Amino acid sequence: MLHFDSDYMRGAHPKVLERLIETNLEQTSGYGTDEYTLRTKKLILDACGIASGNVWFLVGGTQTNSTVIDALLRHHEGVIAADSSHINSHEAGAIESTGHKVLTLQNHDGKLQASEIEQLMEDFYSDESRDHCVKPAMVYISHPTEYGTLYSLTELSEISEVCHKFKLPLYLDGARLGYALASDVNDISLKDVARLCDVFYIGGTKCGTLFGEAVVTSKPELLPAFFSLIKQHGALLSKGRLTALQFEALFTDNLYERICRNAILQAMKIKNAFLERGYELFIDSPTNQQFFNLPNQTIEYLKRWATFEQWGPKGREYTPVRFVTDWGTSDEEIQQLISKLSAI
Amino acid sequence: MLHFDSDYMRGAHPKVLERLIETNLEQTSGYGTDEYTLRTKKLILDACGIASGNVWFLVGGTQTNSTVIDALLRHHEGVIAADSSHINSHEAGAIESTGHKVLTLQNHDGKLQASEIEQLMEDFYSDESRDHCVKPAMVYISHPTEYGTLYSLTELSEISEVCHKFKLPLYLDGARLGYALASDVNDISLKDVARLCDVFYIGGTKCGTLFGEAVVTSKPELLPAFFSLIKQHGALLSKGRLTALQFEALFTDNLYERICRNAILQAMKIKNAFLERGYELFIDSPTNQQFFNLPNQTIEYLKRWATFEQWGPKGREYTPVRFVTDWGTSDEEIQQLISKLSAI
Amino acid sequence: MLHFDSDYMRGAHPKVLERLIETNLEQTSGYGTDEYTLRTKKLILDACGIASGNVWFLVGGTQTNSTVIDALLRHHEGVIAADSSHINSHEAGAIESTGHKVLTLQNHDGKLQASEIEQLMEDFYSDESRDHCVKPAMVYISHPTEYGTLYSLTELSEISEVCHKFKLPLYLDGARLGYALASDVNDISLKDVARLCDVFYIGGTKCGTLFGEAVVTSKPELLPAFFSLIKQHGALLSKGRLTALQFEALFTDNLYERICRNAILQAMKIKNAFLERGYELFIDSPTNQQFFNLPNQTIEYLKRWATFEQWGPKGREYTPVRFVTDWGTSDEEIQQLISKLSAI
Amino acid sequence: MLHFDSDYMRGAHPKVLERLIETNLEQTSGYGTDEYTLRTKKLILDACGIASGNVWFLVGGTQTNSTVIDALLRHHEGVIAADSSHINSHEAGAIESTGHKVLTLQNHDGKLQASEIEQLMEDFYSDESRDHCVKPAMVYISHPTEYGTLYSLTELSEISEVCHKFKLPLYLDGARLGYALASDVNDISLKDVARLCDVFYIGGTKCGTLFGEAVVTSKPELLPAFFSLIKQHGALLSKGRLTALQFEALFTDNLYERICRNAILQAMKIKNAFLERGYELFIDSPTNQQFFNLPNQTIEYLKRWATFEQWGPKGREYTPVRFVTDWGTSDEEIQQLISKLSAI
Repeated sequence: MLHFDSDYMRGAHPKVLERLIETNLEQTSGYGTDEYTLRTKKLILDACGIASGNVWFLVGGTQTNSTVIDALLRHHEGVIAADSSHINSHEAGAIESTGHKVLTLQNHDGKLQASEIEQLMEDFYSDESRDHCVKPAMVYISHPTEYGTLYSLTELSEISEVCHKFKLPLYLDGARLGYALASDVNDISLKDVARLCDVFYIGGTKCGTLFGEAVVTSKPELLPAFFSLIKQHGALLSKGRLTALQFEALFTDNLYERICRNAILQAMKIKNAFLERGYELFIDSPTNQQFFNLPNQTIEYLKRWATFEQWGPKGREYTPVRFVTDWGTSDEEIQQLISKLSAI
Repeated sequence: MLHFDSDYMRGAHPKVLERLIETNLEQTSGYGTDEYTLRTKKLILDACGIASGNVWFLVGGTQTNSTVIDALLRHHEGVIAADSSHINSHEAGAIESTGHKVLTLQNHDGKLQASEIEQLMEDFYSDESRDHCVKPAMVYISHPTEYGTLYSLTELSEISEVCHKFKLPLYLDGARLGYALASDVNDISLKDVARLCDVFYIGGTKCGTLFGEAVVTSKPELLPAFFSLIKQHGALLSKGRLTALQFEALFTDNLYERICRNAILQAMKIKNAFLERGYELFIDSPTNQQFFNLPNQTIEYLKRWATFEQWGPKGREYTPVRFVTDWGTSDEEIQQLISKLSAI
Repeated sequence: MLHFDSDYMRGAHPKVLERLIETNLEQTSGYGTDEYTLRTKKLILDACGIASGNVWFLVGGTQTNSTVIDALLRHHEGVIAADSSHINSHEAGAIESTGHKVLTLQNHDGKLQASEIEQLMEDFYSDESRDHCVKPAMVYISHPTEYGTLYSLTELSEISEVCHKFKLPLYLDGARLGYALASDVNDISLKDVARLCDVFYIGGTKCGTLFGEAVVTSKPELLPAFFSLIKQHGALLSKGRLTALQFEALFTDNLYERICRNAILQAMKIKNAFLERGYELFIDSPTNQQFFNLPNQTIEYLKRWATFEQWGPKGREYTPVRFVTDWGTSDEEIQQLISKLSAI
Repeated sequence: MLHFDSDYMRGAHPKVLERLIETNLEQTSGYGTDEYTLRTKKLILDACGIASGNVWFLVGGTQTNSTVIDALLRHHEGVIAADSSHINSHEAGAIESTGHKVLTLQNHDGKLQASEIEQLMEDFYSDESRDHCVKPAMVYISHPTEYGTLYSLTELSEISEVCHKFKLPLYLDGARLGYALASDVNDISLKDVARLCDVFYIGGTKCGTLFGEAVVTSKPELLPAFFSLIKQHGALLSKGRLTALQFEALFTDNLYERICRNAILQAMKIKNAFLERGYELFIDSPTNQQFFNLPNQTIEYLKRWATFEQWGPKGREYTPVRFVTDWGTSDEEIQQLISKLSAI
């Protein structure tokens, strides 16, 4: 059986695992106070072009989002996000469980638009009853989005500008950031992200590590007492070095982007194979998630050979589905999928 | 200056205040354990046609909503509500501050539709990743709605049916319930509300009392330990009898509906006065809130004589506004308003 | 039957009620934006000797404590309080429900000691694992305390000094502040409270109003967006003027202290009556709550004529009880109680 | 430099790491829905003697405690725990951040006593104002305790009995459970824990894994919708199999107890070495944490060769310290420590 359900189905990239094996029996202090963690923080800040900032390692994406957002907001404040965003739909209410409202804007292929954030803020400030409302106090975006789409550098710059205008910290969820950086279409570098966003995280779990996400900021004053908050959120790993060591591997010799590039190449093969055979896209994604609107019988047939996700409710004749590749997807896996597709 | 901003601008109806004056120097036990409270609970249950149920007195609407909703939900559950609902827009995040997400459906003139609640539930149960989502676990409606509109008995019955089908407690916010009951258009009696909703509150603040809301249920098992939760939410009045005494007055000789009827009659005079002069409605409301889309110069002119609320952002030529009447609005106030309108 | 259960058994002082009656049918804007509220804020700030500060009116004590404490703390911070304090024992977890820990110190007759606060802070800062702990970030005291006892000016000054040293906002719960100010033993004026505490509230509910507490601060920058937080906590009264009008009466011609003085005089008569007859004090309180350790048969006998609270678990032979007087306790009530006591 | 700071300084036991290496490139479904997870759950339930129950894998201890406790409690309820317990002191307010109060009892060498839990419950139910209080609704203990001490089977049985009497779920934090099971003094088997506690967790992080804790219950009905709550708390690992695989290794051939036994043997060598040289115990612990009250100059001397934790504030002449061993502590490490001690 072939598997294209998601990008967290394999373990870690071999070079990542190797670092854990090499260092396994060493003893280091806990909670990220060790030398490996210090060294990896430096590696990441350098890659981001940040002279004076900070990096924290957390374990998973939902926990990272809820911890960062909780840290950036006061009790009466909320976070602006797309209705399709992960924090609004698939985190089981983690943001609300810490007391904060997700203030949604309609997504455009998964993305927010600067002009609509601006409009929301202007409406808020012109509303005489605004003190009875949740104050929009930060912006959450993801790159790539839930739909695999990418912001352009222009779009991100515009959002960043609106955020500065209204003093809204801009937070970027980079769970799949590696797959954005490796895409041909992308024109946003890691340094652009670091420059335009106030806080962001570089995803490890989906991009080569066993687990782990690296929260980065050039403005550590935005996250006072963040260590205690990480602890309170249950997001502090005792053996903190484990996450750092994995990111050390990713940020040595640019492994992060290099291994993610494979996922893009394999995803494009899938995209082309479907398009060449006349199937239609559900969303046009330039990254490692590919969405098609397939005839139900094609879906049934393919399910005999491969696992992949249904994307939304089943239609009468056509149903949207998602195929995901990752750093480890092999040529052989793709060929097998395409050969099954050809046999229809 | 005339005032049509809202229905909480005056004190209490004289008969309500009288009860507070008469009993002022008596001593009773606190927190709603007194005889007046017991007696008023009985009065209200009788008016609702509930043989075996319970009533609790809270102080204000936002606090009532957040306490009831918190009581009805488990940590991972959320409340279905219209996007225009008070809990979603004008309670400063009170629901989220207790950890619960408001799951919004688009409103239809302020109302939810049974079929859309049903669709939301079917989508939830057919979603394979539903365990990663907030569980929709109750429904919030208000009657009248934020826009002054009313559910029909058929509409409320359909919503009630869907709620029962999916085991969703149905909660009705009756901040202005009196103005619904007194409307010509309304075909839902208090007993219908009590029969079709699992929990609801009868609003006092806007309908004749100084303050106070009466939470009613025919299923007290839905609200275990509700007293402690009221206390925790800061919604427990020490001198509990004060709220009960005011509701005693309202539920004696049907004062509640009788005094609210005045607001409807006066509101209709305003409505007709504007319509007769060719102004257009913004929303067609049969209750004590009237919404018009007025020329900006008309608004400027009227503001010299009367206060009323702008309803949404100012337009280039026309802007929506709201006029509200209450139990105390006098014929004279209405005549003065109309004479100013006539003078344009 | 005589009633000495508590100081919230009667309605409002007649002069307080009068203001509500006089203004009842007036129309004013809501939520404390009216002229009466502005005027009363000024009256209170003047009485407190605060040139530039702010006052907010909330409805009840538990809600005031949880709203103020929530406003003063960041997510990872807690409040230092006596183990016997109201917030730790009798608010149904209201503080924790907003995410904050109550960090307890053992009480000394209901009071905190400056030296023990200092020790707690020094221990915290010398603990290498302090980032894994809740940060002690404010101090809560009440005056009078749960046991009716009073801080001396020296004691309060010392606590204030320690708080400033460690940058801990000092918050004083004045639910019964009037009964402190009216006590012969008290040497802390309202102006001292305003000078030594960062935030405090002047209790209305137990000292002459129907309901209402006035939060006062000379440092409004400590409570940013407090209006929204009051709303979120469900503590914002729609008809805001009602609370202000009651406090206007209390702070006109020093009514607040004058009416509270009665409670002290009556309480001292009760104290002396018991002491003269050889009964022993449970706690020596100089305010309107009097605590005795009575033989169980005396308690049984007195219960035939008067209600009062058992204070803690019933003992074999002796049980502690509490008698409370208020602004309205009459000479006759006291004489009747004493005559019953004399008849034993 | 020798390291005795804690038991989370090394990576994983080699057999544990081996399972991750062997399976690294396999693809499995996420969030614990894979075959490895199913198989390991079965292994653990068998080891616990539970015929029909459930197991969930979380990442770390603080997150496990806050998720389980949040699941077991309703909004107005709190958890009974020792004042010295981890949840009360070293989890940065994680329990309170989910809205629940920790109701503390004084510890006895780190332990709770059944009779004191019973007294607390009787006091609660005899308190007439109990509805104004947080309801004590579950009991938290750890085995071993924060001080390395152990409950006897009799003590645990008594606590379990009291819990059943008052319908309090009993939850055992087994962060170091392996070191209890391996201790000579311990008379509580894993099956006893499963029989006497309603929910407990078997700690991986400190007992041989890289990370991971296994929550076990014979009464899964106590944890409804626990999956969603794990997700909401940010405690759901995407690559769920990783935790399961590590526990599979631990629960194969009784590796868990066998490797923990080493820590006990090495800890006893340390204990004896100090005692033989006339040093005094601070607490008498039969597990892998050893506490001594050492002269300050001895501490200074030893710190040149070894790291270990100061346990509480520094004294004038003597200061308490803690030495911790683990599954990987070698004979050589111990010999070196003892030789340094001998050289004093």
